[in-house]
Amino acid sequence: MEVTKENFKEVLPSVLEAIGKADFVAIDAEFTGLRHYKTSSYCELDTAEERYAKSREAARSFGMIQFGVTAFRYMREKSAYSHATFCFYLLGKTGEILYYDNCSLKFLADCGFDFNKLYKSGLSYLSLLEEAEERAEYANHSLEPQTPSPIKVAEESAKKFLEEVEAKMKLLMADESQQVLVLPGNNISPFFRKILYNNIAAKFKNILVRLVTTNDEKNIEIRKFESPESRIKFLEEERERKLDEKIGFTHVIRKILETKKPVVGHNLVLDLFHMMEKMVQPLPEKWEQFKNVFKCNVPTVYDTKLIAKDPPFCVDIPFTSLGNLFSELCSKFSPPQFVIENGYKSYKIGTNSKAHDAGYDAFMTGVCFIAMIKKLDGANWKNKSVVTSKHLVMYANRVNNMSSYDIPFLNLVGPDVQPDRSQIFCVECPSTWSAMHVHGLFHMIKPLKIVWVNSTFLYVIPLEEMDKKSCRLHLKNILASCPPLVHVKLYGDALNSKRKSVSDEVVSGVETRASRIHEFKRLKSVGSDQLSKMSLESPSAEEAPSIIGGSNGKRAPSKQDVKGEDVFSIPDEW
Amino acid sequence: MEVTKENFKEVLPSVLEAIGKADFVAIDAEFTGLRHYKTSSYCELDTAEERYAKSREAARSFGMIQFGVTAFRYMREKSAYSHATFCFYLLGKTGEILYYDNCSLKFLADCGFDFNKLYKSGLSYLSLLEEAEERAEYANHSLEPQTPSPIKVAEESAKKFLEEVEAKMKLLMADESQQVLVLPGNNISPFFRKILYNNIAAKFKNILVRLVTTNDEKNIEIRKFESPESRIKFLEEERERKLDEKIGFTHVIRKILETKKPVVGHNLVLDLFHMMEKMVQPLPEKWEQFKNVFKCNVPTVYDTKLIAKDPPFCVDIPFTSLGNLFSELCSKFSPPQFVIENGYKSYKIGTNSKAHDAGYDAFMTGVCFIAMIKKLDGANWKNKSVVTSKHLVMYANRVNNMSSYDIPFLNLVGPDVQPDRSQIFCVECPSTWSAMHVHGLFHMIKPLKIVWVNSTFLYVIPLEEMDKKSCRLHLKNILASCPPLVHVKLYGDALNSKRKSVSDEVVSGVETRASRIHEFKRLKSVGSDQLSKMSLESPSAEEAPSIIGGSNGKRAPSKQDVKGEDVFSIPDEW
Repeated sequence: MEVTKENFKEVLPSVLEAIGKADFVAIDAEFTGLRHYKTSSYCELDTAEERYAKSREAARSFGMIQFGVTAFRYMREKSAYSHATFCFYLLGKTGEILYYDNCSLKFLADCGFDFNKLYKSGLSYLSLLEEAEERAEYANHSLEPQTPSPIKVAEESAKKFLEEVEAKMKLLMADESQQVLVLPGNNISPFFRKILYNNIAAKFKNILVRLVTTNDEKNIEIRKFESPESRIKFLEEERERKLDEKIGFTHVIRKILETKKPVVGHNLVLDLFHMMEKMVQPLPEKWEQFKNVFKCNVPTVYDTKLIAKDPPFCVDIPFTSLGNLFSELCSKFSPPQFVIENGYKSYKIGTNSKAHDAGYDAFMTGVCFIAMIKKLDGANWKNKSVVTSKHLVMYANRVNNMSSYDIPFLNLVGPDVQPDRSQIFCVECPSTWSAMHVHGLFHMIKPLKIVWVNSTFLYVIPLEEMDKKSCRLHLKNILASCPPLVHVKLYGDALNSKRKSVSDEVVSGVETRASRIHEFKRLKSVGSDQLSKMSLESPSAEEAPSIIGGSNGKRAPSKQDVKGEDVFSIPDEW
Repeated sequence: MEVTKENFKEVLPSVLEAIGKADFVAIDAEFTGLRHYKTSSYCELDTAEERYAKSREAARSFGMIQFGVTAFRYMREKSAYSHATFCFYLLGKTGEILYYDNCSLKFLADCGFDFNKLYKSGLSYLSLLEEAEERAEYANHSLEPQTPSPIKVAEESAKKFLEEVEAKMKLLMADESQQVLVLPGNNISPFFRKILYNNIAAKFKNILVRLVTTNDEKNIEIRKFESPESRIKFLEEERERKLDEKIGFTHVIRKILETKKPVVGHNLVLDLFHMMEKMVQPLPEKWEQFKNVFKCNVPTVYDTKLIAKDPPFCVDIPFTSLGNLFSELCSKFSPPQFVIENGYKSYKIGTNSKAHDAGYDAFMTGVCFIAMIKKLDGANWKNKSVVTSKHLVMYANRVNNMSSYDIPFLNLVGPDVQPDRSQIFCVECPSTWSAMHVHGLFHMIKPLKIVWVNSTFLYVIPLEEMDKKSCRLHLKNILASCPPLVHVKLYGDALNSKRKSVSDEVVSGVETRASRIHEFKRLKSVGSDQLSKMSLESPSAEEAPSIIGGSNGKRAPSKQDVKGEDVFSIPDEW
């Protein structure tokens, strides 16, 4: 079910009820862009901290415009899952200025995303922190109107206007059946309005004079009250109503968090970070700080892409994009029965629905989750909800770390994988260098993989095990034949110099991106190392659509892809 | 007529023809946002340089998504104007990452703007500078394919694949009626594709193997040529075709500039700056540098808002928003006959068309221009096109400087107005200060106007003439009664300290905006000075729609508004 400003109020109770009854919720979101190609392209050797900084920048920079939630509930009596799907259009906070990537928006429009609906009827949201701050502000802001001071009314027409309104006011005050006097705003000049605000408000007790806008029509409303207290109460209720509207979609997220429902997503990082940045609190600067914020606010999360990349699924399903995973799991892994929750809307397996609709993607994600846990649990899957599966323990709060060479997941609650990178060489080179030059310099190491960071910095990864001694020996030989302007170090040695500065750059990316120009290397010949780089970084027309649309990163090569098939990819032209 | 990717190629010749025949073109544009409220709010005492910096930031930050052009031609025989209107949807450069203000987009959507059409079918553009740079790059980039080196094909299925393709290739080479062999891309693994790129390309001379994407379908195309030269020619033509597509809408702007057609806009600053930034070259940092770029590229421009703010129009038409000006001019100033150009589409006066459609706004602008010049020329208007009117001289290349206290226009080609600000006081105060405190400190000066720059800096403008001596005397008295933490200087004295830093801040706005938090003053009581500030700066829900939609700034108060009626405006609630 699509949820916009038009039906939100009416639908919200049933949304909250579905979440309340659910065993878990699957989510998916669509964004106005995935990342800044120039400052935040992923590098396969990003540390967890660097990756956090890049994803955080994306979550702070781009808009989240659609959020899908599917609430799944296990029906023991039927050994089936019921589900209800909601697809929320999100406009965000009024006056919010964020980035958009026109490729991302084009991709979504081509997938059928309705931007007119978004901008006309998108929902507001407010972070839990902002709501708390706003409520705290109430203490500093009295609702008691200031005592108005009447202004001098000398001119004839003004006098007449004042008399007329006074007469109407007397009628209003006398008439118990009437609470409000409305004066059409168009006919009242600013000076006459000032008369209402000052002289009328001073003359009649316990009234409220204000401008009310309905459907672009501005009227002056004069409302009477029985006492100052009832006037305050009225204003308080109205303030609450307005805040409630601003909170909008955050009501849904609050329900998920408060009821501690497990949250399942596919390639969840960006969805999660956007959700936290926009609906919980601004993402802190440091990765370790984030983990604390996460622990305090979010129940358990699971990432279906991470599960899919492990056996037994990776054997039969080489491509883990959501659409592919969904159809492969449905056809090969006999998922259980699914039933649309009574009185709700959702999707059916096998019907051709549109991918990259956040609602449908959330539904597919939940189905994948259940199908995979059913497979892992084997005969044990019946009689209990999948979220109790012991197989989930190792996936809890770990999210897929896209396109990383050796850190397969980010750990949201504990220490991250610390890969051994002692064999890896760091190379600074002139911007004219290509893979050919690198292969020449490292000719004694085969096979190897090149990871470009920018046009003058790259990593060389020997693909076969090497002991520390041979590493040092190779380094010695390489240095001996090193041309001027080329500097080679081992990763560990370089860590405290070069890498540190790279990391600093990223962390401050939001602040300085516009002032810096990163020149990315043009690909000069064909090779696996470059290909992986190309699909990660190239912002060219041909490549762009492949890395956008949801955060599923469908074609950004996973570690597996890079090592496997993509080795033989070729560029579009040569 | 709406112009998108779907009909651009077909329509372009007639667009260029209409422009070629025109006496002048009227333009209007729609944007994804007008300015960053926090860093680039207009101040009534901005210098011309500061205003340039702020408008430049807007042009660099936000997208231009619709551009309307109406070509007007005087038909002497009928004493009438023919017109043809085109409304271009602009998506921009592939992968361009810009800002959007969700209020602006909501406003446009509510006005009927079709964002789905925009993102699906919007046109590309490329600045003249970028085109020149791209062409210069051609010299460094040979179209001659590199000599491919065959790879070892050992596996049976690969061998078979190679043999099959070789057989097909032989047929292709022998068949004069066939130029191309297409192999369905889906069925070819990356390794097999590498075989095509390396082994097939090495075996057959003068062929081109490449991946071709049509409607999301990727195929391998093998094309044969008679000679290396004809292959190069084919690639050159294709490169030109691709560049031509990227240039897209800039073809239209190039035509206007090259044929030196006068350009007319309403409140033209943002339209002009966006147009130059995106279709000519990046706006230079300094205002004086901009004037040079303008002179070198743009023919004469006229701003109908500037003309409308002068007599005789300002007498009868107090509100110069485009819609209002248009209807008032049409009803009170008897414009000449208008005729839609034969074979083209446009609008008719009196029919209810949608404002904030860039095409309709361009049409209204041109009609206003003609109607005003006809009025100024009086009996002389016949027998010649309005663009030859002597009354235009004083308006040439001067654009309305919105919401300025004393610089009514920016001069695009010469020195700007240098207002005398020697009577103005600069005040630094604690952020707790309100207008009441300022009035208290300046009680000896009446009437006065307060212009807030931020919560701790403001200007006090005495509204009655004062000689230098009294200014100094007042300053002395004010300083004597000045509380601690409040600093007062005269504008001239302060110019080299405080104002300089303000200006620096703005110029570097794009780079640092995200890192700085500007706290704008909350309005604490009612007063004209604050009201003017409110409508200029307040990013609140109520206010936002008033300053968005096209660059017509319909409700941002002009100098006149501030001095006149708005003095008595009141806030929505008190």
